[in-house]
Amino acid sequence: MKDIFECFLRPKSVAVIGASTRTGPESFNILEVMKAKGCRVEIYPVNPKAGEILGFKAYPSILDISAEIDLAIIATGRQAVPDLVRQCVQKPVKGIVIVTQGFADADAEGRKMQELVIELVNGTGIRVIGPNTLGVVNNFDNFLTAFVNVPLKCSPVGLICQSGMFINGQADIFGGLGYAVDIGNAADVGFNEVLEFYGREERIEVISLHMEGIRGGRRFMDLSREIAVKKPVIVYKTGRTEEGAHAASSHSGSLAGEDHVYEAAFRQAGVVRAETFDELKDFTRTFVKFKSVPGNRVAVITFTGGGGIALLDAMDRCGLVPARLSPETTMEIKKIFPDWLEVSNPIDLWPSVMKYGYERTYLPVIRRLLDDPGVDMLVCISASHSVPDEGTAYVEKFLLEAARKRPDKPVALWNFGSSRHLMASHVEDRGPVAVYSSPERLARSLGVLYRYYHHTFGKQGSTPQIKISPAGTGLLPGGGALLGAEAMEVLGGAGIPTVRGRLAGSLEEALEAAREIGYPVAMKVVSRQIVHKTETGGIRLDIRDRDGLKEAYRSMLDEVGRKCPGAVVEGVLIQEYAAGGVELILGSKRDHEFGPVLVFGLGGIYTEILKEVSFRIAPVTGSEALEMIRETKAYEILTGARGREGADLEALLRAIVNLSHLAAGRPEISEIDINPLLAAPGGVLALDARIIL
Amino acid sequence: MKDIFECFLRPKSVAVIGASTRTGPESFNILEVMKAKGCRVEIYPVNPKAGEILGFKAYPSILDISAEIDLAIIATGRQAVPDLVRQCVQKPVKGIVIVTQGFADADAEGRKMQELVIELVNGTGIRVIGPNTLGVVNNFDNFLTAFVNVPLKCSPVGLICQSGMFINGQADIFGGLGYAVDIGNAADVGFNEVLEFYGREERIEVISLHMEGIRGGRRFMDLSREIAVKKPVIVYKTGRTEEGAHAASSHSGSLAGEDHVYEAAFRQAGVVRAETFDELKDFTRTFVKFKSVPGNRVAVITFTGGGGIALLDAMDRCGLVPARLSPETTMEIKKIFPDWLEVSNPIDLWPSVMKYGYERTYLPVIRRLLDDPGVDMLVCISASHSVPDEGTAYVEKFLLEAARKRPDKPVALWNFGSSRHLMASHVEDRGPVAVYSSPERLARSLGVLYRYYHHTFGKQGSTPQIKISPAGTGLLPGGGALLGAEAMEVLGGAGIPTVRGRLAGSLEEALEAAREIGYPVAMKVVSRQIVHKTETGGIRLDIRDRDGLKEAYRSMLDEVGRKCPGAVVEGVLIQEYAAGGVELILGSKRDHEFGPVLVFGLGGIYTEILKEVSFRIAPVTGSEALEMIRETKAYEILTGARGREGADLEALLRAIVNLSHLAAGRPEISEIDINPLLAAPGGVLALDARIIL
Repeated sequence: MKDIFECFLRPKSVAVIGASTRTGPESFNILEVMKAKGCRVEIYPVNPKAGEILGFKAYPSILDISAEIDLAIIATGRQAVPDLVRQCVQKPVKGIVIVTQGFADADAEGRKMQELVIELVNGTGIRVIGPNTLGVVNNFDNFLTAFVNVPLKCSPVGLICQSGMFINGQADIFGGLGYAVDIGNAADVGFNEVLEFYGREERIEVISLHMEGIRGGRRFMDLSREIAVKKPVIVYKTGRTEEGAHAASSHSGSLAGEDHVYEAAFRQAGVVRAETFDELKDFTRTFVKFKSVPGNRVAVITFTGGGGIALLDAMDRCGLVPARLSPETTMEIKKIFPDWLEVSNPIDLWPSVMKYGYERTYLPVIRRLLDDPGVDMLVCISASHSVPDEGTAYVEKFLLEAARKRPDKPVALWNFGSSRHLMASHVEDRGPVAVYSSPERLARSLGVLYRYYHHTFGKQGSTPQIKISPAGTGLLPGGGALLGAEAMEVLGGAGIPTVRGRLAGSLEEALEAAREIGYPVAMKVVSRQIVHKTETGGIRLDIRDRDGLKEAYRSMLDEVGRKCPGAVVEGVLIQEYAAGGVELILGSKRDHEFGPVLVFGLGGIYTEILKEVSFRIAPVTGSEALEMIRETKAYEILTGARGREGADLEALLRAIVNLSHLAAGRPEISEIDINPLLAAPGGVLALDARIIL
Repeated sequence: MKDIFECFLRPKSVAVIGASTRTGPESFNILEVMKAKGCRVEIYPVNPKAGEILGFKAYPSILDISAEIDLAIIATGRQAVPDLVRQCVQKPVKGIVIVTQGFADADAEGRKMQELVIELVNGTGIRVIGPNTLGVVNNFDNFLTAFVNVPLKCSPVGLICQSGMFINGQADIFGGLGYAVDIGNAADVGFNEVLEFYGREERIEVISLHMEGIRGGRRFMDLSREIAVKKPVIVYKTGRTEEGAHAASSHSGSLAGEDHVYEAAFRQAGVVRAETFDELKDFTRTFVKFKSVPGNRVAVITFTGGGGIALLDAMDRCGLVPARLSPETTMEIKKIFPDWLEVSNPIDLWPSVMKYGYERTYLPVIRRLLDDPGVDMLVCISASHSVPDEGTAYVEKFLLEAARKRPDKPVALWNFGSSRHLMASHVEDRGPVAVYSSPERLARSLGVLYRYYHHTFGKQGSTPQIKISPAGTGLLPGGGALLGAEAMEVLGGAGIPTVRGRLAGSLEEALEAAREIGYPVAMKVVSRQIVHKTETGGIRLDIRDRDGLKEAYRSMLDEVGRKCPGAVVEGVLIQEYAAGGVELILGSKRDHEFGPVLVFGLGGIYTEILKEVSFRIAPVTGSEALEMIRETKAYEILTGARGREGADLEALLRAIVNLSHLAAGRPEISEIDINPLLAAPGGVLALDARIIL
């Protein structure tokens, strides 16, 4: 490990500044924990009032220590911290963990102090974890900086979190950890740096994140995309709701951001999102257990028909299908089944168990199923009321034995009963069988496993290659908004088909424009104050001739004047009238951390209510654009609902990809709004647009 | 207990027919289990080949027993069952539990045998549970018929299930049971009878169901509605998906039915639906713990800011809000907070714990919060790495003490850590604190608790009273379908406003009809072969005069003829043309178990894709109709989206209620389809309809 993390995770010498002389319960003494855990590291307590703590000589200040110090841990009141950091810089140390709370997580003074601390280390090469952190854990090499004596368990999981609870509960939550870094307020070391480190660390096989908010969203996406191809990155993002986000800002000083933006970023980066705390637990354990899965066909062994049905329901919702058993498997199982029982999947072994007992029933069936080429995964349901002795033969033992011989096929257990927790640990500690406590949690986990290995990467070939139009380089005029024709011109230049149209400042100009474009035409009011044209009467369609235009011009301006008395009308837009097709919306909006976020969705007057929209971080590829469409009900409509002719999907993909490059390539654009974008069998056409600079 | 269930749940004498002489592991011996559990009941083994089993004298046949027998348990091969039932009838016994599998759960022969068994007991007053069942459990009086020695735990829960797994896992799943009846194939005793019994049994406080399919859906709704006012009825319905439903039919011979119909029935009957196995567990325990809740304002005590945020996110999605602390509470807590930490909810006690220790921090804060009139529930987050001795002071103990003094306010714990299971049992066994293993599960459970006590019942006053129009009594012509004007007439008679219209068999009749109705008119093709009129060109709107009608008539018949060459056109419907308004669908369809099921939703050409529909079992009340609308996005549109005038909601409610009474009151109607139903500020109007008889 030649790395900046060497000093944090495998230091040779550690100074504990603010080391307490109190020991025992409720003393929260880091030294005591290090000692209890047997960390093999040189420990130097720093405490001006103590001569010795727990057998270690104490020093008045870090500057009084003559030995080299790799890592300083500061756990004092917050007022003392800046001075202590100054001393660490002077010493110098390599890394500092600031445990102390009361910085960006607290008041204005705290935020200032945090900035000061970062200024002090700036340019020195000294790195800081925290403030407001439990620090680090390295279970591979037995080192930690925690001030509570938490049960440790080693597993190939790399954790990055913004709360000590995930380190505290590691054995229960993740089934153990390899490395953990609690980045706390992330004043210096943040998600991206640790993620990058876990990506190249061979001992880390699964990366789990607890995230309240991230800085450097783009970099996070690039890193995750690169890493997720080799090892799964799982994230439990909190601060998703308004209340949660508000609390996050005062917990770790994080900007929680908009959840749909994170959702888009995670999808594009191949990050596995855990929607719940239970999913964080389940997904982490699942990916630690299984490194591949051949497909989504599941054989279910049960002794309870009712449990099998619950499992089928759950599987169906998670993209898993019951395996069709081969004739050989069916024949084999038939031998132990009563005459009246058909062999089907789920395979209910109960009648056979009553007749032949467990061993003669389960063992051959499990083996047979794992050898069936039509079976990709095996799931077993069992009741656990005790944990058997090593010598006994029991269902879980048969599962373990068979699973060890077929490491290519995941084997999972849903167990219930009084000893289910004990049995779960018993099984998971012994081999490649994952244990879940409900059919839904099992199915969610195996479903995610299947999706990760079969759908997250390698979908390229299946979608059209989109030729990207250049976003253009001429800077747009600073500030303000481009409406109507101005906006359409920018879009047209970026390769997005726009309706032919001309801005007209008077009735005469409107008549002239209509003549040039050719009837029928549409007419739309142009005014910075009017956003919803339909509601204010600012739109007239299917105008067929000069007289119609005159009448429409008069009545439209009249209605708009009545409904929006304050609006300054800059003119009207005369456009070719395109009827039919599906109304869509397409746009982008700049996010603070992730840059331009693309939105696509079903348009029309109910857009805001139907909320059939999807998001991606721009730019997007053709396949990402296709996913965007597929995530909304617009997909079914566009591909020809109820016998209608489908729209030109390729033209739509091209428009989405081109818009994404326009948004990504022109930093002066803060928002683009095409509404509606008309999609028809012959192509797509932007009918109206707005660009905010 | 003067009841038909007396003989099943508290028999004085039991004959075990097919009693095995094998004992020990894998013998599945009912006698042995009864003996092990110390059931105080006269036991009579019936086994022609044994003289004595486990110290009980064995009899060759039940007819050889001279004593009276309350309950016979049959656990033999299936072929023997009919004869044994005959003997039970001859004896006679009061109740029979048929454990044996291979009846309606198996093949055609099994189904026939099941019918035979029911015929045999018919009219005798003898009741049957099963076949294919683990039978019953009565933990209050220590009786059970299970053939596996499952751990028992008593709690005031009444279980009805279709799989023995719920009896097997009772302690783990429900935290114990009072009564359990596994109805198995439900050949005789079914859900409704047991439910009714639990409803009047005082020892049962919470009723939990595992349901694959029900017979007598209407009766179930009536019963549940009546019972759920007094005690919660929770249901875990499986066989929800196609795969699951298929498996259910071969497991308990159940017709799983359509899930949206069950969903509607559960809602209307006030049944709490558990979407997952975990919810079945959590909800049952929650309702056992808490018998009321004053509101939805939650105070959260945490020692991990990160956990608090996760909890807020989860609460937000479940209708729970963070409590605003009173000035008194805030001042009290401020005393132990560091200067830099603002008092807010979640209340992060960690800095205070570091300074004052657990007892001086938690105890006063917990008490203070429970006395705050702005706090309805208290939730605490904690780490459990060990279970403390009785003498020790610890967070959970403080919680229990405080909770006992305020039984009116639910107190809950989310705990994690290596000993969380042990701590959960420790706490739950000691008092009124419920323990959950994740923030989401906690929030779901308390959210459901709140909804049950505040929203499931007693919403009457808030919605308009709808005057119900009589459904009419004249029987409709048998068979076939009513289209257009015929259907409209039936609807009009039932109090649903219909557009004025006349059927015309020729152009001349069409012109005459239009003259009578007055222009503008709409014209629609009438043909039994044409369902989607829009797509086939069978609809013309806004026809303004005679010439327009002539032209439209010609072109419509032309287009229909081209697009549906096989369709027999019976004529055209001429209607007044009503523009504007929101297009809805309203209809009903008869379900096998629940009768007419009402559907309401957003109409228009994308109805099938948007799937903004809701269902209820007919008839419905005004408030149920309002809920139907609210469940869809039509509600926002109808109440005036984007500044438009809202539709006449009361007229819509009246139409829904009237249609529901029409569907429920006229058994000859199998399906009604109003599409579209136009809702405008001035009222609603059925524009087209179809009634299938």
